[in-house]
Amino acid sequence: MAIAVSSVAEVCAGARRASRALAALDSATRNRALEAIAAALEAREGEIVEANRRDVDAGEEAGLGDALLDRLRLDPQRVRAIAAAVRAIAALGDPVGEVIEGRRLENGLQLRRVRVPLGVIAVVFEARPNVAIDATALCVKSGNAIVLRGSSSAAHSNAVLVEIAARAASEAGLPHGSINLIAGGGREELAELASCAESVDLVIPRGGEGLKRALQQVATVPVIYAASGNCHVYVDAAADLEMAEEIAFNAKVQRPGVCNAAETLLVHEAVAAGFLPAIAQRLTGAGVVLRADERTRALLGETEGDAERDAERGGEGIEAAVEEDFATEYLGMTMAVGVVDSLEEAIDHIARFGSGHSEAIVTRDLGAARAFQMAVDAACVYVNASTRFTDGGEFGMGAEIGNSTQKLHARGPIGLRELCTYKYLIDGDGQIRA
Amino acid sequence: MAIAVSSVAEVCAGARRASRALAALDSATRNRALEAIAAALEAREGEIVEANRRDVDAGEEAGLGDALLDRLRLDPQRVRAIAAAVRAIAALGDPVGEVIEGRRLENGLQLRRVRVPLGVIAVVFEARPNVAIDATALCVKSGNAIVLRGSSSAAHSNAVLVEIAARAASEAGLPHGSINLIAGGGREELAELASCAESVDLVIPRGGEGLKRALQQVATVPVIYAASGNCHVYVDAAADLEMAEEIAFNAKVQRPGVCNAAETLLVHEAVAAGFLPAIAQRLTGAGVVLRADERTRALLGETEGDAERDAERGGEGIEAAVEEDFATEYLGMTMAVGVVDSLEEAIDHIARFGSGHSEAIVTRDLGAARAFQMAVDAACVYVNASTRFTDGGEFGMGAEIGNSTQKLHARGPIGLRELCTYKYLIDGDGQIRA
Repeated sequence: MAIAVSSVAEVCAGARRASRALAALDSATRNRALEAIAAALEAREGEIVEANRRDVDAGEEAGLGDALLDRLRLDPQRVRAIAAAVRAIAALGDPVGEVIEGRRLENGLQLRRVRVPLGVIAVVFEARPNVAIDATALCVKSGNAIVLRGSSSAAHSNAVLVEIAARAASEAGLPHGSINLIAGGGREELAELASCAESVDLVIPRGGEGLKRALQQVATVPVIYAASGNCHVYVDAAADLEMAEEIAFNAKVQRPGVCNAAETLLVHEAVAAGFLPAIAQRLTGAGVVLRADERTRALLGETEGDAERDAERGGEGIEAAVEEDFATEYLGMTMAVGVVDSLEEAIDHIARFGSGHSEAIVTRDLGAARAFQMAVDAACVYVNASTRFTDGGEFGMGAEIGNSTQKLHARGPIGLRELCTYKYLIDGDGQIRA
Repeated sequence: MAIAVSSVAEVCAGARRASRALAALDSATRNRALEAIAAALEAREGEIVEANRRDVDAGEEAGLGDALLDRLRLDPQRVRAIAAAVRAIAALGDPVGEVIEGRRLENGLQLRRVRVPLGVIAVVFEARPNVAIDATALCVKSGNAIVLRGSSSAAHSNAVLVEIAARAASEAGLPHGSINLIAGGGREELAELASCAESVDLVIPRGGEGLKRALQQVATVPVIYAASGNCHVYVDAAADLEMAEEIAFNAKVQRPGVCNAAETLLVHEAVAAGFLPAIAQRLTGAGVVLRADERTRALLGETEGDAERDAERGGEGIEAAVEEDFATEYLGMTMAVGVVDSLEEAIDHIARFGSGHSEAIVTRDLGAARAFQMAVDAACVYVNASTRFTDGGEFGMGAEIGNSTQKLHARGPIGLRELCTYKYLIDGDGQIRA
């Protein structure tokens, strides 16, 4: 029932119709639908794993890398984790209907600004089938209809997951058309989806820079890019160096493949000699390749000969950085390292190379902390903490659908509230404008 | 100094640099700059009127209509009103730095979500020179740099107004590059501005549907369309008919050329016979042309012959409506009128034809009011009040730069807060993620 053989425009128009009924549903019905989805996923676990095996087999045949295959794979334990995540979303507070603010105007009009669902949200994602259910649960909870467009390499998994969710939700009282999957995974369907402005209110891509560029070419519907991040840790002249080492190491190594991991370490020249040898040893010891500027290499005793030696042993250890290295989001075990002369130089560097995601300063100097937080233009600006905390769950917002590095509508974690808009309700007793 | 002979990209890059310094300026400095702008406009009133006369003369020669010429014209009184509006904006509260919310996380991290300027805002406007200063004042107050792109038919007026504002602001301590005008008014400059994503954070067009369509073709920068509205007044079965008459008349006639004026009157069939004759007489008596559906015309005793008679006297009075009439934003003295069988039919009609701006129900029935406010998907949904109140000033938000009919970021009046984004500031004492 979920995967109708309809055009993209028809699917979206159906979602639009469903969204009107969804917006009026009470919270209890939406939560019952989420519980039904979780239960159905558990009940049909075998079917899901079987469908997923077909995708994984095809992926192996097509020569997908181990990391991609791992993200694609579902086993019974993972299916149960997906169901548990749905229940966790059900347990969150309802964003819909929240009165954000209100007042009585001079003329007696009573004004309320009330949070309401956006309407229809399209989520475009790559070969991680769990995203289909995570995104669906967030949309159901926030009263939105969802149109999913997954990768063709997860086609069987997505089809069965969305069919299960749509059927369970419908039986629990959600309007037909609330949960939809676009079967065709081609660029043509993407373009049609992203330009269906009459029926789609927002497109959220969950994928890399290639997907982002593809969407920028074609989208007329508003898009929030849940982009990756080029995050920095800046170790100030007044830093507690032990704390700085823990934070820099954590920000890089604790989970290097995610958007809030640090990609660049900047160190004030006043503490560079005392700080860099220890952190460099710890990072390289953990397997991190450092792309270091000239001053860093000089402090670490690296010479041209060493660099050649590094190259011989396959690029591990410490390499000479070129400018491009400071602009790169490695999402892996590589880190650019540079020495700066001042706090201002660090701020300028971040303004030039940062992607506006998460930036951290380590310092005991209140003035430096204040200046850094004021001047750095990013979603999250940390003092004396790891960039790794940028996360809806960590921030107390519940689950998230991604992290926005853009400034409009949602900046930072995109949680339930960010999947909503608002409307003004104005109650009068005959007021007219003079 | 404001109108540099630079490329659009250069102007925007300069605005980006200025925006970084602007974001750190305190409120007092920004208010001093606004006062300086107001004083300079008053002091150089003669120059402004003289420059404007050249535009008006050229407009008359080019055969511009009276309404356009009136919007273009500046006299000493209007210049003083513009200066007064700048002072009124200075007197508003500062949106920048407001802590929207905050909490202490389990791990001791202190989290604040703080309002900050968007950065660089481009305002594209048509031949109303006062918009140049209104928009500039709103951007200065909210800590944003502004890039203005006006119509070529107001080129002389805009040039002198922006030169005055930029010089006064700079002398009062605002960074150079905070206030900019793009001299070339062609479509090429518009495209360059709207795709300058590295330097421009938001484009706000103030103009009609033609400008909107032109921007949709080329914009890669986020755009908030301050669009016109197709607003409805629905007179319910349980309406107080005297109140309904006052509200419908006010919503149409009080200022028909603005976006929150009503374009369609919907009447429940139970009260149509009692309501329509009186309101039709009052509206047509004020010069409004009614485009009425068949049931309305029958109730008003209009026949085919009457329609022919109407056509003979130049289309005044009551005409037969076609479907297109219900989709039209007249922005003038025309109103579509229809009879509906139920509240649900009214809601469906609004969903189909409305533009999501301002919608009103007149009723004494609490259930109908509640259902209407829940189901109608618009920025502002009124019960027993005129749609004409949708306005930042009326809502207690201070001045506005327009009204948004889109759902992302800003819905309804776009005031100072809507010209801002936010960032998360997170203060720790060494927290790392486990």
